This record gives sequence, C-alpha cells and structure tokens, in this order.
Amino acid sequence: MSRSVTGPEIAELIKLISKLPGLGPRSARRAALHLIRKKDSLMVPLARALNEAVEKIVECSTCGNIDTSNPCSLCSDNRRATNLICVVETVGDLWALERAEVIKGQYHVLGGTLSPLDGIGPDDLSIAKLVERASGDDVKEVLLALNATVEGQSTAHYITEQLANAGVQASRLAHGVPVGGELDYLDEGTLAAAIKSRKMI
Amino acid sequence: MSRSVTGPEIAELIKLISKLPGLGPRSARRAALHLIRKKDSLMVPLARALNEAVEKIVECSTCGNIDTSNPCSLCSDNRRATNLICVVETVGDLWALERAEVIKGQYHVLGGTLSPLDGIGPDDLSIAKLVERASGDDVKEVLLALNATVEGQSTAHYITEQLANAGVQASRLAHGVPVGGELDYLDEGTLAAAIKSRKMI
Repeated sequence: MSRSVTGPEIAELIKLISKLPGLGPRSARRAALHLIRKKDSLMVPLARALNEAVEKIVECSTCGNIDTSNPCSLCSDNRRATNLICVVETVGDLWALERAEVIKGQYHVLGGTLSPLDGIGPDDLSIAKLVERASGDDVKEVLLALNATVEGQSTAHYITEQLANAGVQASRLAHGVPVGGELDYLDEGTLAAAIKSRKMI
Repeated sequence: MSRSVTGPEIAELIKLISKLPGLGPRSARRAALHLIRKKDSLMVPLARALNEAVEKIVECSTCGNIDTSNPCSLCSDNRRATNLICVVETVGDLWALERAEVIKGQYHVLGGTLSPLDGIGPDDLSIAKLVERASGDDVKEVLLALNATVEGQSTAHYITEQLANAGVQASRLAHGVPVGGELDYLDEGTLAAAIKSRKMI
C-alpha cells in the first residue's frame, strides 16, 4: 500500500495480519478495515485476547500441548487414562483428536517429523522424552497418530523401534476409506489398504 | 473446540480471529496456532499494532477516510488538487484507488450505498456533506467512483441530481473491458458498454 494513504500504524497492522496463514495482502487489508470498522466489538477484544495469550500461554512440559497452565488441562485431568499415550506431530493434530473426543488417554506432541534433508533429527523432536514417559509402569500402549505422509510414517517407524528397545507396545491409526468419502476420488494406496483391512459383517 | 482442550483464553482468541472476513473456525485455529508458535515475531507485534490502532485510528472529519490523524494524510497533503472530489463507497475503495495512483485530487467516503430495503437513506450516508464540500469555489468536478452495481449506480444517480441542484459537474468511471480481461468471460452488459464507448485508433 502506498505510504501516503494512511499512517504507518495501519500499514504495519496490515503487514502483520498478512503473515497469518491463508491471508494475502488483499484479504489482510479487508481484515484490517473490518477490525477498524468494528473497533469496539472486535478490535479492542482481539487486542485484549492477544495480550492475554502473550502473557498466559505456555507449553506443557509434560506433553508439549499449548495451554494457559503447566501441566496443561489435559495432563492434569485425572479422569483421563494413564495407560495410553497418543503421539501427534503438532498441537493442531492434538486439538483435532480432542474435537473428535476419541482419545481418553494422554497425549505427546513431537513437534514435527524427522526430516534429514531439513536437518531435523531425533534430537530436534520430543522423542527421548516420549520413550521416557512410555517406559513408566502405567503405560500399556503408545498410539502413533502421525500423518499418513512419508515423513509421518518414517518417523513412526523410527519411534516404534525406540519403543521396542524399551519394551513398549506401539500402535498406529487404521488406513481406509474416510467416512463420507467416495471411492472414485480415493488413491490406489488408500483403496488397497481399505481392502486389505476389510471387516467381516 | 471442546472446552477441555485448552483454557478459555485460547478459545476466546480463536473465536475472535474467526470473525475476520474470509476466516472460518478451521483457519482461525490454524491462525491462532501460528500466532502462538511465532509468539515473539508475530503475536507480540500484532498485539502491539492492534493496541496502537485502537488508540490512534480516527475517521477524517473532512473526507471519511481512516487514518491516524484528522484531517487525514490525504486531506492535509497540499500537493493534491482541490478542484476534483472523487466519491467512493468505502475506505477500501479509496485505498484501492490510491494504490493505482490515479486520483490527484480529494476523496469523499460515502459510507455505503442507498438501500431503502435495508433502511439506508440519504441521511445515513455522507451525501449532504459531499454537496456542501462540492459547492466550494475550488471544486470543478465530482467523480462518482461507485461500484458498477445496481445500488452503486442508483446512489450515483441520486447524488448527480443533488449536485446538479447545487450547480456542480459530476462524472463517472468508464465502463469497458478490464485490462487483461478476456472477452469470452465478460457479461453482455460490459461488452455492450465497451462497444458503445469504443475509441478510434
């Protein structure tokens, strides 16, 4: 945006908003105008929410989740089973599983996947910590809920080996047809996996 | 998002981000996680930029532009011609024209279009103010740069009549083929307008 249109404050606001995922310069300008128009109902509360988040948000030192308390609300919830640890790549994946309300156990956020080309090795992920947690007496199963990508699966393979050395049972998510999915749109790998793991009815 | 995943602070942040145009709940969660991951480089600066914007942004009492000074940087720029007032619906339209660097005169933001069904009449827009400004000695032309929609054009028609009563000359943007546009994708109205206003070469 030309410098003469507005003061540097608005230009800075637009620049920062455009750094959010999924927003380009055009949508950032629209978002900034929307915020300015809805000053009292949106801009003021959002500024306050960001300030609160800056002050309060911490990474859970147990599982790596992001929350306003450490240990996080999941780790400190004593209604959750302690015999299962569900391993995810990112906090976003953890939130997705929590929305589905399918995991009644503990979580462990790796912080990414192994990627030798990008210089990301086992020490850059929270793997040693996972093995340590998994070696606790309570833990019966470690569910590797990693993405079904090459990186996710090779990371799962590496972790499975580490866990085997420590004598812990690992499991992975099932492959198959997504619920609501149409066969016509699925790749051969998914179809082959769905057939291989078919269930008798 | 289930309340148990994170504290209310993060849920509130996501809720507010999802109110921005073009962001749904899913992209708001992604944006919130991105902010949290980039706390120092993005969340802190954005919180500061929003606080500054809340404090400093004002509407220009002359033209209706949004800026950190009143009169705005455009109205107080004495290199700009005073004999032309370019009328736009919204501040976003003003910014778009400024980016194109095509208007060397003054602006006037109406704040919308006439819309009797939504109860928006002439008194809800900055029309009387425009006629007053346009009646000044300097002003030779009022360019109605309103959207080429039914609402925009009927608003332009109303304003033209008001300006005629005050003895001021109004103009409008040309209709035609957008630069870079393909004829095949244009509607009949645009093609008819482009042919009617064709230029000899």
